[in-house]
Order: sequence, then structure tokens, then C-alpha cells
Amino acid sequence: VGTGPKILKKTVDQLCESYNDPDVNLNHLKESGLPNQQIVLDILAGVKDLLFPDHRLAHSIRKGETPYLVGGILEKLHEDLRHQICLARNFTWQGDGSCPDNSGQAELDGLTFIGKLPGVRQMLTLDAEAAMAGDPAAISVDEIILCYPGFEAITTFRIAHELHLLGVPLLPRVMTESAHNQTGTDIHPGATIDESFFIDHATGVVIGETTIIGKRVKLYQGVTLGGLRPHKGQAIKGTKRHPTIEDDVVIFAGATVLGGETVIGRGSKIGGSCWITKPIPPGTTVMLNDPKMTYTGGEG
Amino acid sequence: VGTGPKILKKTVDQLCESYNDPDVNLNHLKESGLPNQQIVLDILAGVKDLLFPDHRLAHSIRKGETPYLVGGILEKLHEDLRHQICLARNFTWQGDGSCPDNSGQAELDGLTFIGKLPGVRQMLTLDAEAAMAGDPAAISVDEIILCYPGFEAITTFRIAHELHLLGVPLLPRVMTESAHNQTGTDIHPGATIDESFFIDHATGVVIGETTIIGKRVKLYQGVTLGGLRPHKGQAIKGTKRHPTIEDDVVIFAGATVLGGETVIGRGSKIGGSCWITKPIPPGTTVMLNDPKMTYTGGEG
Amino acid sequence: VGTGPKILKKTVDQLCESYNDPDVNLNHLKESGLPNQQIVLDILAGVKDLLFPDHRLAHSIRKGETPYLVGGILEKLHEDLRHQICLARNFTWQGDGSCPDNSGQAELDGLTFIGKLPGVRQMLTLDAEAAMAGDPAAISVDEIILCYPGFEAITTFRIAHELHLLGVPLLPRVMTESAHNQTGTDIHPGATIDESFFIDHATGVVIGETTIIGKRVKLYQGVTLGGLRPHKGQAIKGTKRHPTIEDDVVIFAGATVLGGETVIGRGSKIGGSCWITKPIPPGTTVMLNDPKMTYTGGEG
Amino acid sequence: VGTGPKILKKTVDQLCESYNDPDVNLNHLKESGLPNQQIVLDILAGVKDLLFPDHRLAHSIRKGETPYLVGGILEKLHEDLRHQICLARNFTWQGDGSCPDNSGQAELDGLTFIGKLPGVRQMLTLDAEAAMAGDPAAISVDEIILCYPGFEAITTFRIAHELHLLGVPLLPRVMTESAHNQTGTDIHPGATIDESFFIDHATGVVIGETTIIGKRVKLYQGVTLGGLRPHKGQAIKGTKRHPTIEDDVVIFAGATVLGGETVIGRGSKIGGSCWITKPIPPGTTVMLNDPKMTYTGGEG
Amino acid sequence: VGTGPKILKKTVDQLCESYNDPDVNLNHLKESGLPNQQIVLDILAGVKDLLFPDHRLAHSIRKGETPYLVGGILEKLHEDLRHQICLARNFTWQGDGSCPDNSGQAELDGLTFIGKLPGVRQMLTLDAEAAMAGDPAAISVDEIILCYPGFEAITTFRIAHELHLLGVPLLPRVMTESAHNQTGTDIHPGATIDESFFIDHATGVVIGETTIIGKRVKLYQGVTLGGLRPHKGQAIKGTKRHPTIEDDVVIFAGATVLGGETVIGRGSKIGGSCWITKPIPPGTTVMLNDPKMTYTGGEG
Amino acid sequence: VGTGPKILKKTVDQLCESYNDPDVNLNHLKESGLPNQQIVLDILAGVKDLLFPDHRLAHSIRKGETPYLVGGILEKLHEDLRHQICLARNFTWQGDGSCPDNSGQAELDGLTFIGKLPGVRQMLTLDAEAAMAGDPAAISVDEIILCYPGFEAITTFRIAHELHLLGVPLLPRVMTESAHNQTGTDIHPGATIDESFFIDHATGVVIGETTIIGKRVKLYQGVTLGGLRPHKGQAIKGTKRHPTIEDDVVIFAGATVLGGETVIGRGSKIGGSCWITKPIPPGTTVMLNDPKMTYTGGEG
Repeated sequence: VGTGPKILKKTVDQLCESYNDPDVNLNHLKESGLPNQQIVLDILAGVKDLLFPDHRLAHSIRKGETPYLVGGILEKLHEDLRHQICLARNFTWQGDGSCPDNSGQAELDGLTFIGKLPGVRQMLTLDAEAAMAGDPAAISVDEIILCYPGFEAITTFRIAHELHLLGVPLLPRVMTESAHNQTGTDIHPGATIDESFFIDHATGVVIGETTIIGKRVKLYQGVTLGGLRPHKGQAIKGTKRHPTIEDDVVIFAGATVLGGETVIGRGSKIGGSCWITKPIPPGTTVMLNDPKMTYTGGEG
Repeated sequence: VGTGPKILKKTVDQLCESYNDPDVNLNHLKESGLPNQQIVLDILAGVKDLLFPDHRLAHSIRKGETPYLVGGILEKLHEDLRHQICLARNFTWQGDGSCPDNSGQAELDGLTFIGKLPGVRQMLTLDAEAAMAGDPAAISVDEIILCYPGFEAITTFRIAHELHLLGVPLLPRVMTESAHNQTGTDIHPGATIDESFFIDHATGVVIGETTIIGKRVKLYQGVTLGGLRPHKGQAIKGTKRHPTIEDDVVIFAGATVLGGETVIGRGSKIGGSCWITKPIPPGTTVMLNDPKMTYTGGEG
Repeated sequence: VGTGPKILKKTVDQLCESYNDPDVNLNHLKESGLPNQQIVLDILAGVKDLLFPDHRLAHSIRKGETPYLVGGILEKLHEDLRHQICLARNFTWQGDGSCPDNSGQAELDGLTFIGKLPGVRQMLTLDAEAAMAGDPAAISVDEIILCYPGFEAITTFRIAHELHLLGVPLLPRVMTESAHNQTGTDIHPGATIDESFFIDHATGVVIGETTIIGKRVKLYQGVTLGGLRPHKGQAIKGTKRHPTIEDDVVIFAGATVLGGETVIGRGSKIGGSCWITKPIPPGTTVMLNDPKMTYTGGEG
Repeated sequence: VGTGPKILKKTVDQLCESYNDPDVNLNHLKESGLPNQQIVLDILAGVKDLLFPDHRLAHSIRKGETPYLVGGILEKLHEDLRHQICLARNFTWQGDGSCPDNSGQAELDGLTFIGKLPGVRQMLTLDAEAAMAGDPAAISVDEIILCYPGFEAITTFRIAHELHLLGVPLLPRVMTESAHNQTGTDIHPGATIDESFFIDHATGVVIGETTIIGKRVKLYQGVTLGGLRPHKGQAIKGTKRHPTIEDDVVIFAGATVLGGETVIGRGSKIGGSCWITKPIPPGTTVMLNDPKMTYTGGEG
Repeated sequence: VGTGPKILKKTVDQLCESYNDPDVNLNHLKESGLPNQQIVLDILAGVKDLLFPDHRLAHSIRKGETPYLVGGILEKLHEDLRHQICLARNFTWQGDGSCPDNSGQAELDGLTFIGKLPGVRQMLTLDAEAAMAGDPAAISVDEIILCYPGFEAITTFRIAHELHLLGVPLLPRVMTESAHNQTGTDIHPGATIDESFFIDHATGVVIGETTIIGKRVKLYQGVTLGGLRPHKGQAIKGTKRHPTIEDDVVIFAGATVLGGETVIGRGSKIGGSCWITKPIPPGTTVMLNDPKMTYTGGEG
Repeated sequence: VGTGPKILKKTVDQLCESYNDPDVNLNHLKESGLPNQQIVLDILAGVKDLLFPDHRLAHSIRKGETPYLVGGILEKLHEDLRHQICLARNFTWQGDGSCPDNSGQAELDGLTFIGKLPGVRQMLTLDAEAAMAGDPAAISVDEIILCYPGFEAITTFRIAHELHLLGVPLLPRVMTESAHNQTGTDIHPGATIDESFFIDHATGVVIGETTIIGKRVKLYQGVTLGGLRPHKGQAIKGTKRHPTIEDDVVIFAGATVLGGETVIGRGSKIGGSCWITKPIPPGTTVMLNDPKMTYTGGEG
């Protein structure tokens, strides 16, 4: 036996030993399988097909037949949702090993989620309007749906957020991370974002789990709405660690707003690259360097 | 009938009603179809195959047969271009509903675009040289073509820009947004970028629609060449809203340059994280904090 | 013959002439082929399958049969590795045109790399633990493996780094650039990163080639560990151009640390958006604006 | 220019000349496109999914949601049917070049065809029963649906026959030829076949266009129900050229029955390899060689 | 609502009613799923990869690493086999609805089947030799493996037969029917075929369930080894209904041999198109028409 | 270790031993690889695209651009042909192990083959005309190209025959066997078939290697043109073993014509199921049973 087979054999043995080592945290010890990343992303794509059928479905739809098309997609979605939600619920469930009712819960979760989709479409209508109003270069809503990464990110967020509200673990995060990878915008599915939201350019935006955002807010690239680490001890999960942004606020490129008690008051403007860790009263304009300009920004 | 079917039925009805509601801006009401995102990206990939055949085509090419290979790819490209350009022109056309000559125009646009490709290849030769010169870690042009996100971004920009110059709507943006998603560099297809351009690291760069960039300019990650919002009223579309960067300028990581009248003079260096909203004379070095260093940067 | 065929013909001729022009640097003149980007990414995916079989392989594995599964994947990996390493070594080899021993070297490289995989898995165990400890929102290691872009980036880095240590050209960079595209984190495969490393949010991070990072270091999004350009002359390739980060350092969002002699001492905290070009003694906290807070950050 | 390019160039020129030669019958000169073979076969597969959902659809169907699944498949089918029928009708239409109403006719054809599917399913129920009764080796209807080439052939025939009855050209033949290729059984879509039909082994069976087959008929492999060529002149298209097989007839392996006036009377048995060109009275048993056996056969 | 939607709705309702009708034999009423045809064919392909690795696997195999390649394929095979066998056993199991031990039985069946593969390879070695000897046009064993439909048919038969011997329902038949479709040769998986078997041209051959074939037998296209239907009553399943062919027999094209008591004695030749329903003594030559030729045939 | 792993291990060992056993004829011992079946079939499909572009290529072709389309397909074809021909020539080459000039020969073979394609198209024009004339049910040449298995078989034969004439081993047979599998018609690539040839129904036809067929010959399903085995000794490879069919002959369904000296004279008709082993003078009609009919047939 030559060197090659020996090295292969040794590597095989070491990897197999590592897989069976209960102290290696990379091993998934529960018997039930894990949700499948690809199927979760297929579900996400199916939901988007329902929300934007003109832009995503290849063939034109006859009006009288639309209900069957929609029903067919929904039926398939429900099937996949039920299964993946059940796996996700089993997978995070802590206890004695029996999990008698997750499949019923998953069935219900799937239906409830589906029932929310018309409302999601209504919210996205307002977001698209905000994008049209917010970008002087935008030509049509079709362009926004097909090309704008910020609109892609908010679409995925609004879908994932509905699953998050139902308490479904893991799946919402898989969805928002796929949008993060694609658009560079990282919105935690637990954030609360009101209507008519717009992110211009989108790259490098972070919106933390307990952020609350009001109506008609506009962000530019590189904005962080993050947590402020306390002097001592760790951030306590479940407390509000991220800021509140009130209605009609604009935050320009690269600005950072941190902390659960940091409220940006209604109608304020936060200049590019500003660093905010204290509440800002309504109607304020905060500038980095240049007090003579009323407000500034990075609208690329 | 159980709860599940009831919820499905209600959701189907609500979605179908929403699709047919003329007030919902997500519906595409024109009869003509939309350009297909996937085909547009296939066109982009085909053009790149022609520009870098050694690096992208699987089989080696015999010299005497190259014309047929190239001709075969071009013929397919022209076919797809004509169709997608025609859809894009129909789709943005405003008026009485008849669009008699877009197909002729689309035919012509496709041919004109194809005729520009040798010139695009020449420009990319200089860009690749600039990348070799600009990154001390670069080993060969092959590595730049295969691995450098900044070169990927400028390649896609130069292709999309030729379509933009022809007045083709939507398609250039679909192309540059795919590069934005992939590389994190957001170059508007309308920008004007002269030869020997290099972006190092590439993530988080924004170059706005009316930016003008001279020869031998080098940018680092996180640079924004953006618009400066006026005190009152909206930026007027069509005016120059983004800066001019003259020949031989270097702009280091995270710097922001804003405004249509902001000119960075020939040979200047803009330090990392600087915030520039006023013209900078030629040969100037601008630093954020540390006046003792002649120039500084973030060459990762 | 109409206008269309004329333009096509002219374009074909010009492109073919450009392909055969020895002065055009985009042409790959060596006879041996180039490594294939897709196969290199398949190798990367195969290695990840071996490192996280529970999370990436569709079917559950019977314990007694695991060695065959692992062996089968390794055998295929070795085959592909040998071939791609050989192409990469030929491709960068400078000389008289004969390259008699690269195939033997490639065989050996492949085996040595494979022999390192159990060690890589051990390192990732500690990285996953660091991610659990470092993000209050993390629920389980499974979530980290499936959803965290920072963990994806460090996984790809640790794999590519082993090839880099063997002196294999091009392949490590193709791997880390794919992680850069996906996660927005750009880690040069030549960097040295010790155990228990965590990057939160990941977008816009740059870690340069000669960076050295100690144990239990934590970075946030937008951090650059980059080179400091000297007053005169170019950075000399091969010298240490990037900083050293000692054990237990935390660097918050958007901070920039530059220069080969810049050492961040053990246990220091670098505040968000700070700009560091000088050594920082151990145990120091550096803040941007607000001296009253002990330390601050952008934990989104 | 070497020999290779010369030969390529000459071949290209000759082929292009041949494509444009109006005397070459292989060129399709009409402007409208041809039906697409692959889409026609996808339509066939979609219809089979509706007929045997338990055996062909991967996921189990919830009863309350079945209508949406079925509706979704039907909606897609109708879309494709309309388009392919329209192409097929344009393609065979002879005249002045304008074809104003085929699209309306195609719409109607598609709907009428869809309305026939429940009846087709009823017929196949009886065919499956006949297969169970006719093959002593059959274990279950599921096995017949999944494995029996004779059942596959009759299923495809019954689908194609409905299109044939509507006068749709080309599509029925594309369907039955795909079954011919797969099963070796060549049933012309114009044949008339009553309920409870079974073909055992299936290979090499030919059933001509004007054949009429009664109830409960059973055929073995290699049976030809063909045309009898007249002494002088060609068979006149539109006349009955193929035999009539009355109820309850069995025809054993390799037998040949020819001619439009050849009627095999109710309940007769035609022995293996017999050659019949004259009418056979009801209740007759025809044997090849061995008059002492009442009836014989090739039941494999 | 127009005509189209009405027809769609009526068809949907009728099909759904038909699916739920307990009297429609096309519905699969058992709760457990059916084996999946595609996976069964993938298993068959995997087994063939193991039997002919040089001809079917794309990459050349290093000797020292072969065990891992083989082990990896076997491990995947076992996984799929276990699952499909379990579904097949559940699906044909008749009784009270609980099926407690099929999964254990399926596990065992899969392993036993795998253990038979080296023996199958040995048998195919002899079959390939018989093909070389039997066809004057054969150039090499490689050609036989790659091109001969008769060898394809016997390969699939020998694999399916091992599953049949284990009592696994349905799967063997799915396998042999795929070979039937592909090659036109229909060998029932229950037949008994000894070593060195060869079928020339292959189209239209039928070999029934209880056929017994000795060593070194050679068949030509169109041969049927079938059942003889008794004068009264049905063939009784389980009895020997098909002939016995002793060692060294040759049966020429289109011959038919019928009946469970029909034995073709060792070394006999059955002429093309002969019809045999009685035992033939050893060493006999049977001719159709031409007594002056010693033996005749259809060796195409 | 349980039973399962033991059986797996034993099977792996036995299979590996079998692969390395020089006496097992299934192993391909030559070092050079084998031609790849899938690539050979892709070449076949590419050639058919060139022969029937209107029927096989999805997009309509602009006349002025056709040369590039054709040239692009030919260039790819030549590349693949060269490689597969070279593998095929190496693979059958017997000798001292060095094969210095096959690659040059393969290059030449590929070009010569390509140069024959316009002539093949001309022959197929006449075959299509013969099919139109020969089948009263044929509606158009388009239907013949899209649906007729006999036309598919002769098309594949004419392509494979050109490779056979060049002495290329294995590839022609791989092509004709794929047509055999698909259509049930087995034409040896070595046969000689003159213009205007038509096979109706096609299933079960065998045409042997040394058959010679004249102009305007028509066959029906199940016809064998085969070899006559001599009384003693084996058929000598290279001698004429199969019949000659002169111009204007018709052979009806299931007839068998055997032997190298058997000539069917010009204009003869061979009745269905006849068995011919002697020469037939020109203008003869041969009938099976019924002397009163001038000629008969099985035109299904």
C-alpha cells in the first residue's frame, strides 16, 4: 500500500471519529433531520412568484384562470412549508425527545403564514411607492422590482418576518441571510418595520433584531442600526438592544445608530457617517463636520 | 371543508383581486411582456465569453476556427439582444399604445452594441494593466480576470454602459445590479469612466449616475462617489449630481465624495474615510486625522 | 449582404485579431489550460460536505457505513484536486516551457491537503463556539453553520489557507473570492488566524495577506485590517504590510487598522469607526468620540 | 489559411445554400414556427400526472387542497396546449398566408380536450382492469401503471386520440410516436379502440389509422392490424384500409390481420403468427399449424 | 365568468371526485407511498457503474483509492435500496395495516443483494465472452459493453433477478421493463438463465417468468419463449408455464417456443420463425421450410 | 462492527479484486480512456441540428447570420469529433503501445466527415420524398422529420456510415445502436444503402453489415436482411454475408431475406412473412400463402 492510500485511510478514520465524538459541537446529535436550505429558498422564491407574478412568471396569465395558477402554487407551498416548519420546530425543541404535536402546529403555521400574504403584498405596494419617491433615478416600479437590491431586501424581510412572528425558528434567518448574501443588507427577521420603507444602494446595511422603524423612513448604504454593549456583562437576549427610528426619518450613508434607548425623533435627518448613541429630538438635523450645510448625504 | 382549504381559498381570492386592482402599483398593466432577467444575464455572460475566451470557454480554440466560434456566439447574442431590447423599449414607451418601430430600433441597437465589443476589449486590457500595477499582491492578469471583484465590476459596467449610451432602458441596470450583488460594487451604468480604472477589494463602492472619472484613477473599498442633496427641493434628474474625479487620483478606503460641482483635481490623494463636498485642487493630499503622514490608505 | 452581416463580420474579425495579438494582456498565451473555476468551487463544496455532513448531505448516515461515504468523497476530491493543482502550478510556472514534475507535486499537495482536514474541523469547532459565545442572538451551532456569513467566511478561509501554505497558486484565491462575493468578507488566504475567531454580520470586512490574528479575536462588520502605504515607493511584496491583532481583542464596526508594524495589544477594544495606524498597548480601549463610555460597538 | 478552415468554410457555404434552396424539401418555408417536440411531450406528461397523481406526483396530496393542485396543472396545460395547437394549425394550413382565427380555434380545442380528461380516466380504469384479468403474472393495478408497456401505449393513445378527434394536426402523432419509441407499440392516433383493451408484452405491435377495435379485445406482441395494398393504384387516403376487430377477440403473438374489409368476428381467437386477409366469422379459432389444439398463443 | 374557466372548473371537480372514488382502481388507497421509478432506475445505474467502472465512470481510478470509490457508491446504493425495498414491501403487503418489520427486512435485503454483486460480475464476464464468440462482427468486449442491446438486457436481468430471488416485489419489474423499453428485449425477472448467454440484435425477444435456460444458449431477435394457454381455464400462476432450453441450444430469429413442458434438448438448433409447442430431443435441428439445409438463421 | 459493514467490506474487496484481475474480460486494460457515449450522442445531435435547423433549433435564423450559426456549431463539432475519434482509434489500435499519429488522423477524419454533411443532406432530401410517396397517411415532410421512426433511423445511419467509411471504430456503432434503442430499427453502419430509402413503422427491422440496397427500396416493420450461417464453420468476417436488394424492391412486414448470395432482383415484391434464402429474379412477386393475390403487405 502506497503513501496515498495510507493518508486517505488515516483521514477517513479521523473524520469518522470526529463525527461520532459527542464533544464536537459541529455534530447534530438529534435524530430528526434538519430543515433543507435549498427547499427553504424555494419556498421563498414561490412566495415571491405570488407577490410579483407579472415580473417573475414566464407566461402571461389569463384572468379567468389565475385562481388555479395561484392555488396550484399555494398548495405546493403549503406542502413544503408544513414539512420544513416541522423540521425546524423539532430541531430546536428542547426536552425529553418526544415531540407529539409539532406536525399539527406546523400545519397551522403554514396556513396562517399563507393567510398573511395579501397583507404583505399591500405593504410592498407602499414600499415600492417610497422607492419611486426616494430615488430621482428610478423610472418605473417595474425597474424597482427587477433591479433594486433595497427592495429585494425589504421583500425578503417582510416574508421572513411573518414566519418569525409565528415563532418558527431558523427558517426566517435562512431567508434573510440569503438576502444578506445577495444584496449586502442584513435585516434581522425580528425587526419591526412600518410601511413605506426604502433603502438606497443597500450594500452594508445592518438592522438589528429589536430595532423599531416607523413609517416613511429612508436609509442609505452602510447604515448600521445596532446594539450598544453595556459597560459590564453581556447584552441580555430579549431586552431591546437596538434603536427606534420614528416616522419620516432619513439616515444618510455610513451613519451608525446604536442602543435600545436611542430614539431618532420624527422627521430628523442623520448625516452621513454620523455616530449616534443618544436620543435625538424630533426634527433635528445631525451633521458630521460641516455645520453650515443644513443636511447632507450620500445619494449615489 | 376544513380550515385549511378555507384559508387557501380566501388567500387565492385576495391575491387575484389584488392582481386585478388598477391601483396596486406592483401590477404591470401593459400588454407587452417584460424583459427576462435570466436572458439578460445570459447575454451578459455571452459577451464576457467573447471578451475572455481563454478564461471562460472550456475547450481550447484552434486559431483557424476561431471566427466560427465567435460568429456562432455573436449570432445567438444578436438574436437574444434584439428581443430583449425590443421588450425593454416597449415596456418604457409612453403613449398611445402603438409602438410601430421598436423592433427595427432594437435590431439596430443590437448590431451597434456588438460593433462596440472590440473597443470594450481594448479598454479592459488597460484596466487589467492598471490592476496589475495597483495591487502588489497580484501575480498575473489571469488571476485578475478569474478572481478580482473590482475587475468583474468594471467589466460589467463597460458592457452595460454601451447599452446605456444607446438609450436602451432597464437592461443596463439589470446587468450592473447583478455585478453589485456579486461584488458589492454599485456602478450606475450611466457613469463616465475613462481608461485604466482599478477598484481594490471592491466591497461597498458606490459610483453615481453622473460621475465622471478620468484616466488611471484608483479606488479602494467603501468609497462613495455620490450626490449632494440641495437644501430645498429634490435633486433634478438630468443635472450633474455626482462628482468629477480627474486623472491619476487615488481615493482610499471608506472615503465619501459628494456633489455635482465637486471636482477632485488631477493627481490628488483622498485619505481613507475622508468626507469631501467641496472641490479639491490638483495635486492635493487630504487626510482624516494625521497631518504628519503624506498620504495614507486602506490597501487590505 | 445587408448592414447586419457586415457589422457581425467586422466584429468577428476584430475580436479574432485581438485574441491573436501578443500585446493584448487578456490573452493567456501558455499552452497548458487554466484551472476551471467551477471545479475549484466544487472541490470547496466537497470539503465542506466532509466538514459538516449532518448539515449538507441530504441523507442520514449509518454509522457503520460512514467510512465508505467519506472515503468516496475523498477519492473524488483527490482526483479533482490533483488535476486542478497541476493546472495551477503549470500556469504560474515561469521558465523554459517544460514542467516535468508538477504532476507528482500536485499528487503530493492533494494528499497533504486532505490530511489536514481533520485539523481544520477541530479549528472550526472552536470558531463555532466563539460564534455562540459572541452573538447573544445565536440559538444553536446548527444555526451558525446554516446561516452565519462570518462562519461561512472563516470556514472557506481555513480551507483555502491550507492550500496556500502548500504554495498552490490561484486556487486559494478563487475560493476566498467566492466567499467574498457571497458574504462580503474578503480574507486573503495568506492571513494567519488563530483559533476561536468570530466575525459578526461580516459585510465589508477586509483582512490583508500578512495580517496575524491571535486567539479569541472578534470583529464586527466593516472592519479593515489593511496595509499602510509608505511615503515613497511601493509596498514591497513579501514584507509584512498588515497589522497584528493579539489574543482577546475586539474590533467594532467600521474600524480601520493599518500597517505591518501596527500591533493591537492583547485584550484591547477598538471602538467603531476608529482609524488606527500606530501600535496600541495591551488592555487599551480606543474610542472615536465619546470618552465617557468605557467601550462601544456596533453589534447589530 | 490551412486545410481545416477551408473545409469548414466550404461546408458552411454549402449548408447555407442548401437551407435557402426552395427545391430542398427539408426546409420549412412557412414563416410561422413549428410546434416544439419537447413541449408537446411535456403536455403529455402533465396529462398523465393528472390521470395517475398517486403514481407520478412526488408528494402526497391533501384532499382539501387537491382542487388547487389539479387546477394549477390544468392552467399550465391549457397555456401550453393553446400555443402548440395554434402552431400546429398554422403549420398545416394551406392558403393565402393569413390565418386570422387559428388562435381562437386553438383556445377552444385546448378547453375541449381538457374537458375530455375525466372520461379518459374512466376508460383507463377499464383498461387497467382488463390488464389485471389478462395477465396471470400481474399482481396489482399499481404494477400495471408503473411497469406495463402495453398500458403505457394505450394511455398515450387515448390522450392523443382526443386531440385527433378535434382535428389537431401533428401533435397526436408526436405523442404516439414517443410511445412507439418507448414501448415498441405503434398505434395510430386515428384508430378507434373501445373499452377494456389490453396488449401483452407490447413490442412490435402495429395498429393502423382506420382500425376499429371493440370491447375486451386482447393482443399479444408482434400483432399487426394493417392495410392491404390493392392490386393496382395507391391506397386512397380516407378510405377504411385497416381491419375491424369485434368484441372479445384475442389475437396471439405475431399474427397479422390486413385489409379494411377484414372483420374478425366477435369472440374469435387468431392463433400466433397467423396471416389473415379475409373476414373471420364470430366464434372462430384460427390456428397456424396444429389443428388438434383448440387455441394456442404466445403469452410470455 | 367565461366558458374557459367554467370548463376548467368542471374538469377539476370531476377529476377530484374520481380521485376520491373508492371504486376507481387507478387510485392507490394505501397510505404508504409507492416506490419511486426514477430512484429505482438510479439504483440500477449505480449497480452498473460498479460492474463496469472503466466504461461508465468518467474519471480514471487510481488503484489504491478504488476501495473508497466503490465503498462510496455502495453506501449510497444501500441507503436508496433500503428505502425503496421498504416502500415496495409495504405496498404489496396485504393485511391489517400495521407492517412492523419491513424496514428490518429491507435493510437485510439490501445487504444481501449487495453481497451478490461480485457473483453477478463473474456471470457477466462469461456472457461477454459468449457475445464475442457468437457475433462475427464483434471487435472487442468494450464494444459489447458499450453498444450491444442484448448484453444490456442480460445485465439488467441478472441484477433484477437477484432482487427477485429475495422476494422483493415491483422493483425487479421496473428494472427489466426499463431494459425492455430501451432494447426491445423483455426478460421477466423471474426467469432462470445460466451462464454464457447471448441474444443477438435483441429486438422483440420475450422470455417468460418460468423459463429455464441452460449454459451457452444463443437467441436471435424476435424469439419468444412463452406460455401455452391450456384448452380450458386460465394458466395457474406459480406453475411452470414457459419452456426449458437446455445447454448449447441456438434459436434463430423469430422462432416461438411455448409451454411449460416444452424442453429443447441439449445442442438443438431451432430454425428461424419455427413454432414449437412439443419437446425436441437433444441434438435435433428443426427447420421451417427447407429440409436440404442443415440449419439456417437470421444472423443480421 | 455489525453485519452490514462486514458485508459491505467484503463486497468492496471482492469487486476491487475483480477490477484488478487480468483474466476478467470486463476490465479495460489499456491506459488510454474510452470514447464517452454521451459526447458521441451529443455529436450526433449536433449533426442533426445542422441537417434540420428549422425543426430542431429553437430560434428562427436570420439569413444573413446563418453562416455564423452553422460555423459555430461546426467548430464545436470538430473539436468533439477530433477528441472522440482519437480515443476510439487509440482504443482499438493493437501494437507496441505507442500511438504517435492518431491525433493527426483524428483531425483529418473529423474534417473529412464534416465535408460530407452537405451530401448527406442531399440524400436525406430524397429519403424524405420517398417517405412522402410511400406512406398514404403522411401529410408533410415536416411530419416525417418530426415523427417518423424510419426516417430517424435512416438519418442516423447515413451519418454513422460516413464515419464507418473513414474507418473510425466504435463511434458509428454507438450512434446506430442509439437509433436502434429509440426506433427498434437496427441498421449496421457498414451497410450500403442507395438513395430514396424508406422503412415504414420501423420496429423490428434488422439490416446486416454487408447488405447492399439499391435505389427506391421500401421496407416494412419486422423485415430482416440477415446472414445465412454456412453448414460448417463460422461466418468469415469480411466476406459478404448479407443479401443484395436491387432498385425498386418492396419487402413487406416480417419478411426475412438471408445470405450473401441472395439477390432480390429489381422491382420484385417480397410478401409479408416470407422467408427467402435464394436469389429472386427481377420483377418477381413472392407470396406466403395466397397465390391469387398479386402482392400483399402489412402497411399499418
